[in-house]
Amino acid sequence: MKTINIGIIGFGTVGSGTAQVLMEQSRRITRRTGVNICLKTVLVRSLRRLPDELADVTVTCEPDDLFADPQIDIIVELIGGIEPARSYILRAIEEGKHVVTANKALLSQCGMEIFKAAAAKNVEIGFEGSVAGGIPLIKTFKEGLAANRIVSIMGILNGTANYILTEMTDHGLPFAEVLKDAQAKGYAEADPTYDIEGIDTAHKLAILVTMAYGIEVKLSDIAVEGISRIDPIDVDLAREFGYRIKLLAISRNHGEHFEVRVHPTLVPESHPLAAISGAFNSVHIHGDMVGDILLYGPGAGKLATGSAVVADIIDISRNILHGAINRVSSLSYLPEYIETRQITPISELTCPYYLRFTTLDQPGVLATIAGILGKYGISIESVIQKASRKREGVPIVVRTYEAREADVVKALAEIDRLPIAAAETVKIRILTQED
Amino acid sequence: MKTINIGIIGFGTVGSGTAQVLMEQSRRITRRTGVNICLKTVLVRSLRRLPDELADVTVTCEPDDLFADPQIDIIVELIGGIEPARSYILRAIEEGKHVVTANKALLSQCGMEIFKAAAAKNVEIGFEGSVAGGIPLIKTFKEGLAANRIVSIMGILNGTANYILTEMTDHGLPFAEVLKDAQAKGYAEADPTYDIEGIDTAHKLAILVTMAYGIEVKLSDIAVEGISRIDPIDVDLAREFGYRIKLLAISRNHGEHFEVRVHPTLVPESHPLAAISGAFNSVHIHGDMVGDILLYGPGAGKLATGSAVVADIIDISRNILHGAINRVSSLSYLPEYIETRQITPISELTCPYYLRFTTLDQPGVLATIAGILGKYGISIESVIQKASRKREGVPIVVRTYEAREADVVKALAEIDRLPIAAAETVKIRILTQED
Repeated sequence: MKTINIGIIGFGTVGSGTAQVLMEQSRRITRRTGVNICLKTVLVRSLRRLPDELADVTVTCEPDDLFADPQIDIIVELIGGIEPARSYILRAIEEGKHVVTANKALLSQCGMEIFKAAAAKNVEIGFEGSVAGGIPLIKTFKEGLAANRIVSIMGILNGTANYILTEMTDHGLPFAEVLKDAQAKGYAEADPTYDIEGIDTAHKLAILVTMAYGIEVKLSDIAVEGISRIDPIDVDLAREFGYRIKLLAISRNHGEHFEVRVHPTLVPESHPLAAISGAFNSVHIHGDMVGDILLYGPGAGKLATGSAVVADIIDISRNILHGAINRVSSLSYLPEYIETRQITPISELTCPYYLRFTTLDQPGVLATIAGILGKYGISIESVIQKASRKREGVPIVVRTYEAREADVVKALAEIDRLPIAAAETVKIRILTQED
Repeated sequence: MKTINIGIIGFGTVGSGTAQVLMEQSRRITRRTGVNICLKTVLVRSLRRLPDELADVTVTCEPDDLFADPQIDIIVELIGGIEPARSYILRAIEEGKHVVTANKALLSQCGMEIFKAAAAKNVEIGFEGSVAGGIPLIKTFKEGLAANRIVSIMGILNGTANYILTEMTDHGLPFAEVLKDAQAKGYAEADPTYDIEGIDTAHKLAILVTMAYGIEVKLSDIAVEGISRIDPIDVDLAREFGYRIKLLAISRNHGEHFEVRVHPTLVPESHPLAAISGAFNSVHIHGDMVGDILLYGPGAGKLATGSAVVADIIDISRNILHGAINRVSSLSYLPEYIETRQITPISELTCPYYLRFTTLDQPGVLATIAGILGKYGISIESVIQKASRKREGVPIVVRTYEAREADVVKALAEIDRLPIAAAETVKIRILTQED
């Protein structure tokens, strides 16, 4: 029986999880593939003892023990971040080794460099673990839905942000308090910026966009807004209107241009994504042939992400066994067919808006606001005016019909400059029903 | 550029849908694979004109035009049923052609014969379209979750049955009326037996069980119960207890034995499967590494099933191009590793039960019923006793704790023989929360 040797870089959460999946599922993998997949070497920063069941595995701090070992077929990068991950992956490719990674930050920023290097050496890059943890989402785009023009993607792709929003919704707690609690419980990192500011979600969406449409997208083209400014009052008011606030990755295919954006979104309660709670991830895909597909599962976690990483290892091992390297293009479309398309500027976006104005308690305020919105062509669908909770101002909440982002921005700037404005207006985009 | 030629048997809903997907997605498929996939021949029972965009396709009633054509690489069987589908597929295999089919009835009954014949000729059998329409479910079991011991599968796999139950629930209508309406609208077939009696669901579950566990299962080992006896009163009462009634395919992996069954089930409202409405399909999978995964999408339909059929065609074409035939075993596990395991008899099943007794309106009836249940070791968790809606009897509804099916059957037989019994007791199994 053929043996495929694996080297892992990094033995943190996902690294140790991947090792565990490889060990525990060893016989099952053989029953499925007819090959023996063997963890041979682990490269770490400082030497440590591995668990007893990994007694046969070499642990080293010396990169050459991994990269220069001719017996190693696949190198699995699980340290995250840009460097040294990028250099390690390029070195592995240079040595003719296949690569598996769960590094969305790296792929979304240096993906093309890595994919080009891999194509030149005819090695594979697997990255199922980089988006939506254990959900087989990359494979779904590359193979399961290969006969579809993907029309839209909407996803909850960051478990930490979704956990925080769920806690805020279920318990009426403020953002800062929930974040602190999440950090104490280990659900959020010490520096949570990437998770709560939508950056991690944008990294993942950038990868999905290439998989779905065969277009290249620059991270800087993605409009990104996080959840750190969401107030419990907005969570409550959204509920009164029949919505849940979710941090969504949204992309739409308009043919010549593509929407690609990440922001807090009011999701109608009846939409399946509204029900996704806690640290789970979920992606809603509309394909022109298949219609609506939804996938749901754990977006992170040692064994869940390990399951995705090992699925990639199995895929590549099957290709090694059958001499079918790059049977499916890493980029989902063949490199020569990857296209460049315009990403719609967020200012051109049209959608309904939730607007929360905070004003002085004076007569005629609503008329003034409505007048300015009207001047910019923004129609009001409904209004909730609340008795003041705080001394500083009265909340007036407006749900608009479809309006253009640029117009909304201008109208809000004008309103926020008025003497009646007591605080900056809160603006949250609403997912329309036809989504 | 290499051309892969396709022949389709049958030009009904899925056949014409597959042709449409192949035509409309032709350039996309080339961008993804680098091959040209070309529909060459359609075999039909009686000659007909194809749509204008298929003017280049040969239409024939002569099987030899398809099977004896050396240019045809893949034959797609879309006529359904056992014969002549079985003979056609065996003939295609004999001629060394790869096969794609959406025929769950055939695969669940003659699958091993077909897979053995295919292995002997080293051709592939693709069948993504046979279960859950457009959802890439077979691929998820064979590849995406390949590094998991699948612990349980729970699925809504028949859109017609789910549509009927949804209409009964939303509008309080009786089964027969909803069925008639569904038939008028084309959602249910003239002979709806397979859909409403759970037989179609059992066919699909049999296929999934092999994909998930690598075991062979005989259709006769699957306990099957349909929805034709569900009364609107049970839909209402289930709701009062916090459940929705769904026709579920359920399988659990106990290592040495496996549960495999299809029956109406009370699903807790909080469970994601409770929210799946209308003609949609959904499958909830628990893997030991990944945890809980849910897939959701259209379970049928011309283009949705066409999307799955063409995904198989693309998969096989990639294997032809790369010389990697049977890169993934059709059976998910390699044939030599397919195991035989005991299917747990339904009599050994333990679960909580919903029991609706219909009795004469006499004092002491509840005590009598409770006494007999107790004699068989069945504990009552809660009771609803309703004022009589009908003259014939008073409904008493009991939710039990976990009980053994064999004991429940014995207790009900004894109760239904009592002089106070006014109608046969209705028994519906309840999905437990840990599911």
